[in-house]
Amino acid sequence: MRLTTVAVETPVGEARRVCVADDAGLIDVTTAHAALLDERGEGAPVEVAEALTPPEMIAFLERGERALDAAEEAVAFALDGGPERGPAGGRLVLDPDESGVRPLAPVPRPNSLRDFMAFEEHVRNSLGGDVPDVWYEQPVYYKGNPDTVVGPGETVRWPAYSDTMDYELELAAVIGKRGVDVPVEAAAAYVAGYTVLNDFSARDAQLDEMRGKLGPAKGKDFASALGPYLVTPDEFDLPSAEMTAEIDGETVSSGTPGEMYHSFAELIAHVSQSEPLLPGDVLGSGTVGGGCGLEHGRFLEDGEEVALTVAGIGTLRNRVVRE
Amino acid sequence: MRLTTVAVETPVGEARRVCVADDAGLIDVTTAHAALLDERGEGAPVEVAEALTPPEMIAFLERGERALDAAEEAVAFALDGGPERGPAGGRLVLDPDESGVRPLAPVPRPNSLRDFMAFEEHVRNSLGGDVPDVWYEQPVYYKGNPDTVVGPGETVRWPAYSDTMDYELELAAVIGKRGVDVPVEAAAAYVAGYTVLNDFSARDAQLDEMRGKLGPAKGKDFASALGPYLVTPDEFDLPSAEMTAEIDGETVSSGTPGEMYHSFAELIAHVSQSEPLLPGDVLGSGTVGGGCGLEHGRFLEDGEEVALTVAGIGTLRNRVVRE
Repeated sequence: MRLTTVAVETPVGEARRVCVADDAGLIDVTTAHAALLDERGEGAPVEVAEALTPPEMIAFLERGERALDAAEEAVAFALDGGPERGPAGGRLVLDPDESGVRPLAPVPRPNSLRDFMAFEEHVRNSLGGDVPDVWYEQPVYYKGNPDTVVGPGETVRWPAYSDTMDYELELAAVIGKRGVDVPVEAAAAYVAGYTVLNDFSARDAQLDEMRGKLGPAKGKDFASALGPYLVTPDEFDLPSAEMTAEIDGETVSSGTPGEMYHSFAELIAHVSQSEPLLPGDVLGSGTVGGGCGLEHGRFLEDGEEVALTVAGIGTLRNRVVRE
Repeated sequence: MRLTTVAVETPVGEARRVCVADDAGLIDVTTAHAALLDERGEGAPVEVAEALTPPEMIAFLERGERALDAAEEAVAFALDGGPERGPAGGRLVLDPDESGVRPLAPVPRPNSLRDFMAFEEHVRNSLGGDVPDVWYEQPVYYKGNPDTVVGPGETVRWPAYSDTMDYELELAAVIGKRGVDVPVEAAAAYVAGYTVLNDFSARDAQLDEMRGKLGPAKGKDFASALGPYLVTPDEFDLPSAEMTAEIDGETVSSGTPGEMYHSFAELIAHVSQSEPLLPGDVLGSGTVGGGCGLEHGRFLEDGEEVALTVAGIGTLRNRVVRE
């Protein structure tokens, strides 16, 4: 399934809904599930659907396989003979292009955001050729800011304190299940799905602050983009998915997740040592080799759009605009 | 006021309540407020109290001055002629020593945890005498793990991957109000209060991973202790509050927040550039000079208790136990 979150304008304020993206449109999972329960004659279908397949993504992920199975069934029902509207009056299928429907990051406010540096070529290019020994021994990472996540199509405000704006082409795994001390062999079961991550970087600010031996922080925390879909692992060809970056239509980076030196399973095993991984945690792969301006010299200019594509997931577009 | 959060065992599961600590006991703010509203003949006193002075700390802080004023009034009412029980049957005053009442961190799950390095002596001692120029130019920081915060008296599980366990004596400011681009002069209004922070450190793991040029992460994220109280700024003598650390009764560190090179107002101004500060965000001062074993050589042993005291706030005690 290709899951996402959308904001829907309504006369009583904005609603946020977990949807499944299909060629036919965006299926509102909770509403479709309520309609299915109603057809089966179950009592309180709306309330039961909201409990089992909630319209908020982290709550939905917390319900695990049960919610995914129910969503799959509800989507099939919506697309094949389901009513136009559910028992509370909501539409089962939304049109992504209609006015008032706006895509958000699949997880609009992750529980946490850890970003790694799992591609050797990126490390080599970024650190002037020297890869520290420890990099081979463990997957190192920093923690980003889950409060500044932006979604597909959203404008990124370029901070006033920076003159050098960069993108980073990354893949992200979203955790679906709580786990501590997860062994590498068991790690796959903790991934709810994959999405595209653009780890926007105020490169001058980042390089400055990191001379202080902590972070990064201000170099990263103004914005990170996630989207457009959270694709479940059964539908995603992890090692060979083509990843590309374009700036205003010009291809500037490409690679595949198969080039990661540390796998997502290894990232999960490492992070979860003596520390819980939780539903809604996001793990970024780090930048693919050549996947940012710091490596190839092409930085972003005011008003440019960067489009990151991962085959099987989709394209995440964001324009940067100076404050 | 000295605010905190307590867990109360009940026959229907654990309840968490925002309380004000007083010599007479812990005043349950929401219940005391409901009792006061009830006495005044207001309709739905329990529901109105839960909306205006919620029993969850971040929700309480989000309501700002209005909640603080109501809490102050409710506490005065509880201590001077209030009933024993509120309109829903809850007790206005809890005894911190009674069984079933357990202190938690004042903010049990912060919205975020940023930890700085604002004391020059600590930086000098930790980095072998060299203070990077950038350290004087801006307050550098890393982001900790808000999901592993522990409270007063709670045991810290010493991770299996570490042999060198350390404490860090710190003061923390808790943000009470949303703000972006906050000027230094206006920063004080964003602080809900101060508490004690022990930034536990698996020092060997931290030094290892930081050779990878990111982080720290596994060296810190297994546990951070906060407590025992969140003291509002009007009751706290910020620059001259004595800070001390004891290991099993032996004094090992001391200092005052006045020694910070970057003030909390400067930390707030720095972080909030192009990035929102939010209620429940925690900003750690960094370790006072000589405030950890890395500086003076006295690390923690299995089973030892470390007690951090900040005058005007109280003592935060935690025992470390090897997994």
